[in-house]
Amino acid sequence: MKFSINRASFIKALNIVQRAISSKTTIPILTGLKLDVTGNNIMLTGSNADISIQTTISGDNPDNDLKISSTGSIVLPARFFSEIVKKLPDTELVVEVGDNFQTNIKSGNSEFTINGLDANGYPHLPEISTDNSIDLPAEIFKEVIGQTVIAVSKQESRPILTGVHFTLDQNQLLAVATDSHRLSQRKVSLPAESDGAYNIVIPGDSLKELSHMLDSEKEQIKMDLSENQVMFNFGATRFYSRLLEGMYPDTSRLIPDSSATKIQFSAPDLLAAVERASLLSHESRNNVIKLTIKPNDKVVTITGNSPDVGKVEEDLQPKEISGEDLEISFNPDYMKEALRVFGKSDVEVAFTSALRPFTITPTENDHEFIQLITPVRTF
Amino acid sequence: MKFSINRASFIKALNIVQRAISSKTTIPILTGLKLDVTGNNIMLTGSNADISIQTTISGDNPDNDLKISSTGSIVLPARFFSEIVKKLPDTELVVEVGDNFQTNIKSGNSEFTINGLDANGYPHLPEISTDNSIDLPAEIFKEVIGQTVIAVSKQESRPILTGVHFTLDQNQLLAVATDSHRLSQRKVSLPAESDGAYNIVIPGDSLKELSHMLDSEKEQIKMDLSENQVMFNFGATRFYSRLLEGMYPDTSRLIPDSSATKIQFSAPDLLAAVERASLLSHESRNNVIKLTIKPNDKVVTITGNSPDVGKVEEDLQPKEISGEDLEISFNPDYMKEALRVFGKSDVEVAFTSALRPFTITPTENDHEFIQLITPVRTF
Repeated sequence: MKFSINRASFIKALNIVQRAISSKTTIPILTGLKLDVTGNNIMLTGSNADISIQTTISGDNPDNDLKISSTGSIVLPARFFSEIVKKLPDTELVVEVGDNFQTNIKSGNSEFTINGLDANGYPHLPEISTDNSIDLPAEIFKEVIGQTVIAVSKQESRPILTGVHFTLDQNQLLAVATDSHRLSQRKVSLPAESDGAYNIVIPGDSLKELSHMLDSEKEQIKMDLSENQVMFNFGATRFYSRLLEGMYPDTSRLIPDSSATKIQFSAPDLLAAVERASLLSHESRNNVIKLTIKPNDKVVTITGNSPDVGKVEEDLQPKEISGEDLEISFNPDYMKEALRVFGKSDVEVAFTSALRPFTITPTENDHEFIQLITPVRTF
Repeated sequence: MKFSINRASFIKALNIVQRAISSKTTIPILTGLKLDVTGNNIMLTGSNADISIQTTISGDNPDNDLKISSTGSIVLPARFFSEIVKKLPDTELVVEVGDNFQTNIKSGNSEFTINGLDANGYPHLPEISTDNSIDLPAEIFKEVIGQTVIAVSKQESRPILTGVHFTLDQNQLLAVATDSHRLSQRKVSLPAESDGAYNIVIPGDSLKELSHMLDSEKEQIKMDLSENQVMFNFGATRFYSRLLEGMYPDTSRLIPDSSATKIQFSAPDLLAAVERASLLSHESRNNVIKLTIKPNDKVVTITGNSPDVGKVEEDLQPKEISGEDLEISFNPDYMKEALRVFGKSDVEVAFTSALRPFTITPTENDHEFIQLITPVRTF
């Protein structure tokens, strides 16, 4: 195996697969990065117990300046190899595997020889059929992740809640996450119907990692399933994640269909006031802030209190306010995370009573996205 | 005590004094920030066991928009108070101290009440005479710190070596640091002679903190001494540090006055090659790289080796090379830190023998700045 390649192109691909590689793995070969050099391209693979990433550098793209002298495969120590590549002096580099998996890396006057491992010892990635793909714009999928993962449980006591539940009804993709204190649900209409039976739970951590990789992705993302794995395809990259096993709880009945009190705010204004109030609640044992809503006076008062440190009170002017008077207390951190997702848009917060969950929806397209927060009893 | 002030000006001053405030202090009142409101200005003070910082916001500067209704002093919980001020909604804020040190902070519709502490319980800062000041451009002093603190010892076994030794001979200020493996020495010619008897050791950590504060400082810095404290004056800020007690070792004889082999490089080129070689030495137990210098062939070869991981070899083209053949091994991390200080300029590395310390100097103004590194015996 021997090839020369443009260093910048190679670093880009290394950075992609390194997201899956951990130095903490208990399987030694997974601290390595697998290179497969075939006829006209190089495939890089990185993996840990939960996710695997594979990306291809093609000889067809002249920017890659890929020249393959001989094909083959090798596993190289990932962290160390990419540190070397990043520090090489020239714009090109040559990688050549010699006897006993000894690998030579040359660039300019610099020459490294490092010990590789037999690629036959590297685990095989699952084979996943692409017959029932779901196809959607990467940007939309990134939005779906961002809106749901915030509500994923961080506790391992109920593992199934550490994932996002995806189901498909004709062309409606539904993504739901809940940690049992709050819930976040997003619906997406797919351009085409799919025959696949989608009822899967993807680990929240896998989705966060995937989301980072979609930052600059303007293309479509394709999603395919096997029994216990999901594969995402975008650009020259494939991202595999295990699925969580078990039944996801039925969340459809949790969302109230009526409300007694409603207020509307620009999301950043409400967020700023909640952040101020949380400065005090964070100093107190129960981390709770209170909203006092008086529709007749057109005023919403937010208060935070910590006996040791002090208190805060602020009158807010809602854009709209209607319904009954209400006093309600809740964890400000749930509210902050919920509001951040809305960016600069307007939100409606709808309450049923002081002890029932309340909803936060965008004032536009309110059927697509809904968040639910359970209040805290303070009396 | 009551005043109103521009929030941005106040935040700037808070950020300055907060550098001295630690939440880990064993003296509870030092987790606080002291505010002293006098006739026409506010003085903010923060302190820990090692350094104290005091800065003044003047009513004379219209940008500060300072309006004092009544004078007085208070100590407020530093971290918490500055989080509040940073999140307030309006461009102005009003601070008012009421009964029992309860302090009210108002901005827009937001109103905080927090528990303060009696300012009489706050320790007094040392009184330092300004009769024998040393005056020099802040930029130069920042350079002196950057060039010397790298060689300060990180080990507490010889506390005196954790500081930088400053001495004054007529108008020559000399700063030296050594951790006994390497040494860094900088000379500065002061614009005027000083009568002060300067022979002090300032803790490296204090100097690093001071250096960060001089980032945007274009003015002069003034340095004054008491028996066990040094005070730096710049802009509206005073920075106090304790001095280290004890005799600093005599370092004047350590610097060799002749050499057998000399090489010249652009500092970033040599640094990049040392960084590459250190990738391998870091994987090996003794963290050593080797230079092989052959003046007749005009070549310098750098090698790094780790039996477990691999090896690296690189031929370098020095800008100048003269003297005898030499093989010398050393810790690449000392070399990296030494070379980084030179930025983009050219350096001369001068060797006496494989077991004697070698020097690194700028090719220009070589008498002002010198670094010394002790090699490692590998045979």
